[in-house]
Amino acid sequence: MEIYSFSGSAFSWRALLALEIKHINYSSRVLEISKRENASPEFRALSPRGKVPVLKDGDTVISESLAIMTYLDRKFPDPPLFGRSPEEAGLIVKAISEFDAYTYPLLLRIVFPAFFGKVPEMADDMAAAAKDLRPDLDAIETSLSERNWLVGQHISAADLAVYPFIECLLRALGKESAQALDLGVLPVAEHYPALEAWRARITALPGYDSTYPPHWREADRAAA
Amino acid sequence: MEIYSFSGSAFSWRALLALEIKHINYSSRVLEISKRENASPEFRALSPRGKVPVLKDGDTVISESLAIMTYLDRKFPDPPLFGRSPEEAGLIVKAISEFDAYTYPLLLRIVFPAFFGKVPEMADDMAAAAKDLRPDLDAIETSLSERNWLVGQHISAADLAVYPFIECLLRALGKESAQALDLGVLPVAEHYPALEAWRARITALPGYDSTYPPHWREADRAAA
Repeated sequence: MEIYSFSGSAFSWRALLALEIKHINYSSRVLEISKRENASPEFRALSPRGKVPVLKDGDTVISESLAIMTYLDRKFPDPPLFGRSPEEAGLIVKAISEFDAYTYPLLLRIVFPAFFGKVPEMADDMAAAAKDLRPDLDAIETSLSERNWLVGQHISAADLAVYPFIECLLRALGKESAQALDLGVLPVAEHYPALEAWRARITALPGYDSTYPPHWREADRAAA
Repeated sequence: MEIYSFSGSAFSWRALLALEIKHINYSSRVLEISKRENASPEFRALSPRGKVPVLKDGDTVISESLAIMTYLDRKFPDPPLFGRSPEEAGLIVKAISEFDAYTYPLLLRIVFPAFFGKVPEMADDMAAAAKDLRPDLDAIETSLSERNWLVGQHISAADLAVYPFIECLLRALGKESAQALDLGVLPVAEHYPALEAWRARITALPGYDSTYPPHWREADRAAA
């Protein structure tokens, strides 16, 4: 199996985590956006919109992170990513749908300016987004105060779907320019202790290190 | 089981079609937005954001249309809505994810002004949206020229997810104010014959009539 991603793409990270949790052997193809590798005719044949992640398994090509998680779960059912009961399955997909529909657009309004040097001109909108985002983060914190994973007693596609975006958010908020805005999320351990403990559970998963965005790792090393 | 919806909500229509295809007995609760019935404390207890559809099955409450289809499919596996193989499952969820992420926002830019009397001031944006929407409609037409359903040889959650939005689009384009824009979709049978045949297959499904938006039926009768 081959998985195509961009370094730091949270949607790609979902698929990488699913591959690791399923203990699947795969080849990772990290495309360079700066070289427009996602615009190549070879890649467009797999992904007409140029989007990642894309999973290639023999002749089967699946794009869209939720579709990739679904495919992997049907092909390799153990451990299940979509719950042990109809109710768990419904609640897992509900958590992912809600995150993608309501939380992700808010998060993007913070992450994008912070990563692309637009904090000064976007500061007001970032503060507004953070205000609207807080109830969603609070709801995640409440869930994780009651149990180890977002839905049910086991790690699921809901955790894999939400986690990469939380990491993007926290990394964005940690940029010097964003820290100055004091949006009330950092330090995480203080504001969201259950979320912090859940992050530690995820980073402790076998195979986690292979999913970590390569250019983040480089920057982490350079900063250390 | 109880299903909460708004009349004409395409997301709700997905869930209603799934219930009918599974031959499940259910009670339909159509909330009146004009009376703000989705803001009642009773309903907010089921759906904190006031969104529909919501499925209540005993103590289990599931919102978000894809989650409801997932729940119903796990609880009543026959006929399967998410495919007969991992590949079909992946392609079905891919089709729904792509529709929701890319096609739906374009469609909304046409449907909303047409239904809410904003065609004059939004005509340029509607034309721009229609231009961007056309490749997506063309891709659907191509799929349906090759087979009866969007993915595989059977009706699936992909058909149930896309169909209600196509109906909303066509109804919106049929409004007198929108027809004047001539956005190149109507008459459907001329521009998209395979799509038209697929619509006929869906309207012929047993139970289809119960899913049709009640206020559309009233308007259809009044116009007849």
